[in-house]
Amino acid sequence: MAPRILKSLAVALFICLAGATIWSQVPTPPTRQAAIDELVVANHILANEGVLDGYGHVSIRSPQNREHYFLARAGAPALVTAADIVEYDFDSNPIGGGSGAGYLERFIHGEIYRARPDVMAVVHCHCPEVLPFANTGVPLRPMYHMSWFIGEGVPVFDNRTGFGITDMLIGTPPLGKALATALGKSSAALLRGHGAVVTATSLHLVVGKAYYLNLNARLQYQAMQLGGGKVAYLDPEEARKAEQNYERSWDAWKAALPARMSAGAR
Amino acid sequence: MAPRILKSLAVALFICLAGATIWSQVPTPPTRQAAIDELVVANHILANEGVLDGYGHVSIRSPQNREHYFLARAGAPALVTAADIVEYDFDSNPIGGGSGAGYLERFIHGEIYRARPDVMAVVHCHCPEVLPFANTGVPLRPMYHMSWFIGEGVPVFDNRTGFGITDMLIGTPPLGKALATALGKSSAALLRGHGAVVTATSLHLVVGKAYYLNLNARLQYQAMQLGGGKVAYLDPEEARKAEQNYERSWDAWKAALPARMSAGAR
Amino acid sequence: MAPRILKSLAVALFICLAGATIWSQVPTPPTRQAAIDELVVANHILANEGVLDGYGHVSIRSPQNREHYFLARAGAPALVTAADIVEYDFDSNPIGGGSGAGYLERFIHGEIYRARPDVMAVVHCHCPEVLPFANTGVPLRPMYHMSWFIGEGVPVFDNRTGFGITDMLIGTPPLGKALATALGKSSAALLRGHGAVVTATSLHLVVGKAYYLNLNARLQYQAMQLGGGKVAYLDPEEARKAEQNYERSWDAWKAALPARMSAGAR
Amino acid sequence: MAPRILKSLAVALFICLAGATIWSQVPTPPTRQAAIDELVVANHILANEGVLDGYGHVSIRSPQNREHYFLARAGAPALVTAADIVEYDFDSNPIGGGSGAGYLERFIHGEIYRARPDVMAVVHCHCPEVLPFANTGVPLRPMYHMSWFIGEGVPVFDNRTGFGITDMLIGTPPLGKALATALGKSSAALLRGHGAVVTATSLHLVVGKAYYLNLNARLQYQAMQLGGGKVAYLDPEEARKAEQNYERSWDAWKAALPARMSAGAR
Repeated sequence: MAPRILKSLAVALFICLAGATIWSQVPTPPTRQAAIDELVVANHILANEGVLDGYGHVSIRSPQNREHYFLARAGAPALVTAADIVEYDFDSNPIGGGSGAGYLERFIHGEIYRARPDVMAVVHCHCPEVLPFANTGVPLRPMYHMSWFIGEGVPVFDNRTGFGITDMLIGTPPLGKALATALGKSSAALLRGHGAVVTATSLHLVVGKAYYLNLNARLQYQAMQLGGGKVAYLDPEEARKAEQNYERSWDAWKAALPARMSAGAR
Repeated sequence: MAPRILKSLAVALFICLAGATIWSQVPTPPTRQAAIDELVVANHILANEGVLDGYGHVSIRSPQNREHYFLARAGAPALVTAADIVEYDFDSNPIGGGSGAGYLERFIHGEIYRARPDVMAVVHCHCPEVLPFANTGVPLRPMYHMSWFIGEGVPVFDNRTGFGITDMLIGTPPLGKALATALGKSSAALLRGHGAVVTATSLHLVVGKAYYLNLNARLQYQAMQLGGGKVAYLDPEEARKAEQNYERSWDAWKAALPARMSAGAR
Repeated sequence: MAPRILKSLAVALFICLAGATIWSQVPTPPTRQAAIDELVVANHILANEGVLDGYGHVSIRSPQNREHYFLARAGAPALVTAADIVEYDFDSNPIGGGSGAGYLERFIHGEIYRARPDVMAVVHCHCPEVLPFANTGVPLRPMYHMSWFIGEGVPVFDNRTGFGITDMLIGTPPLGKALATALGKSSAALLRGHGAVVTATSLHLVVGKAYYLNLNARLQYQAMQLGGGKVAYLDPEEARKAEQNYERSWDAWKAALPARMSAGAR
Repeated sequence: MAPRILKSLAVALFICLAGATIWSQVPTPPTRQAAIDELVVANHILANEGVLDGYGHVSIRSPQNREHYFLARAGAPALVTAADIVEYDFDSNPIGGGSGAGYLERFIHGEIYRARPDVMAVVHCHCPEVLPFANTGVPLRPMYHMSWFIGEGVPVFDNRTGFGITDMLIGTPPLGKALATALGKSSAALLRGHGAVVTATSLHLVVGKAYYLNLNARLQYQAMQLGGGKVAYLDPEEARKAEQNYERSWDAWKAALPARMSAGAR
């Protein structure tokens, strides 16, 4: 057989062995529909675990077009279905003329995907435990391996810097760009008076990071009160080595979805 | 066609486009039954989300008569049905001779509707997170856009001022009037040793405000501990611009009602 | 008709009007079975609301014999059925020869019923929020009307005083008597390194008091942190006037029982 | 009859009287399948009660071979089934050639079973409330009888001591041995930047200890804030006398498992 055919067979075998869930770890492109279905599940998990309230959102970069991303049209994450998912370009314009209104803050997603080619998934949340950190400037630090990515640093973005008095939202492309710049190469950034953004190289990862960003905030708050400010966080190098993929968490969170949500998954 | 007919057609078209849920934002009068059904759902949401315990209440101004309001007769909000809703006048007397006992504190509602023509819905809660603020006089401040209305200021009312030693309840018209005066033009007020009242221009809004008043209190408490008192709250102008309508939260909260409650909705 | 017959008719009429649930407020004796059935529901509510863990208990004085009380035999409150209820005398010996082992700490109940003729129901819990108060001696104070009874004062009992090093349990009649003495005329007492006891004139009341004792502890803790120790509690006279009966809470808590528990209720 | 037969009859009678659940307290060997089925239930309880997240684990020593232990292959505890349980030797090699990947940290279990002949069950958790203690070095102390075993002392293990910069996991036999050495004769140890290990003489006990280790941490944190550091913990001798077996907690936790989990139990 020609080398090309051999290579195709090897790839096919690899996909077969890797199975259905592995695509989030390896950049094997899933079908458009598979990607959308996973995104629906991610919406439900983040709502069910208390990371997203009625107004947060989660997106993925399109597996077919790296300059597009998928995001639900405006609606509560707990209620998102596959029919609600819209494809956007980097300018956050819907592809093919969008039906329904989009999230006012979809520029968060478009501008981060544009600025960060490594990012495959983005969460924007008002996850409550991070607000005390966002509004005091006390830096988030990694309490344990489950929140290893906090070791990269979690910058705080403030609309006020450069945009004056706003409605606090990331409602324009320039605000989206400024947020992406503030995020830099980190996994997450806090937004003063607003919440957080979280990024990752896969959908499963971004869900895990958003969950543990929120939990880490509560634990760090308690540790700082308990220790009078003397807390042993992960060393930056420990944090790097402690990288997690959260695949088992995803499995458990998905299984815990109530019946009214799990219909969203195929 | 005569201008009058054209206008009627335009209104009919608007109502048709606006759909079923928009009435909470626009003062298009729903039917009496639709208003009551929504009020039942609001009771269940507030109980299910932990804002109301067995003794709080929520009311709406009648869409048919601006000097009347709807409120359940005395009973736990989690168990309210459409048959429990009573129509009251500003003096909090039941219209048409009430069946069943009313809430002792219904004067909260009657006196606020009388004093505040802009208010279309009122919640009275013992929402737990606000009590530490009500009993210390530490002012609530807006932590984020979701609790934007706190930027209007949240006064604390104390029965003791003007009424001496009481049973802590707002059990008389004068107490109701005094509370309405203390509330002023704010969305919410705290009651020392008691809880809070929350007002809004619609039922959906008042549910969202009550939920985020309670959550903001917890987050502000944590931020104050964490930041040693130095916390960056929303600027008053930011707070004004950040106004939310909570429609998506309503949708998600309604969908999350357990089966034993959701029968209350048509 | 003779006066005696008239009186009987009046009593029958009263019982008829008062209905099924009122017996907890008025000392109209319910049947033995009705009392036991209510006690089963109280066990389930207290477990479901997080007041009792696997080892707490709740009892009622027998409506037929004021020197007897009903208490489940040893077992988790969440799993108690009517068949588990045992009748005890003041010495906490089972009537008619008990089947199954009794709670080691049933002397809490027997000795309090003996010492306090006004008490009709007793809860012993390890309700978590009170432990920080029990172990620091910081006095519980009434945060709001829902925990009015805390205005009576909540003494802290310590096995160490008079009994030296023990297993922390109230496992003997003398310990039960000492606890009853420490309780005095209060509704509740804390036990250092252990939990709390709560008493009331009815079963519904004792369930509500136990719930709000625990919640008040959390709110007071937060208020003390927030206010730097300066907190406006209910005045003792306000607390007395604010007496609650928790009947609506009982209704809501009962309706919230999961299916696996509610079978315990008839 | 010969003494040997008499002895056998006595043992049979004892087993009959002791019943099904007592094996966790008395070293009567259950069958291999019964042990595995109980281990599945323990996985589900610990996940359902919030002690284990997607990455913790629980094991039991084999009742048939004291040098072997049972542990699920890598997977979320909430989803473990009997088919997932693998038998390991002290070197944490699967018996009979393992199917599926094992937990990277299974050496925690193997090395503790090797070092501590009294230990019959081990939990490794990232139980959140203990992290503030693990990262500050503030010693855990017993708040009440339910966490009596904390009176033995809870040492803190740090990978950094002896192993430098690591990925924070106990991923090698030497790390497992070092942890077992740090644990010493205690029931539990904390892991800096990681979580905790908990041991007991039975599966039911280890589940109860893990639950109350986590809860004690929260209560102690609150008590230290409330009391300004002055907290009356259990005296070491009180703690020893207050030993609990948590059998009733096990019953209640098992009954509370959702339907999707309880299928794991036979």
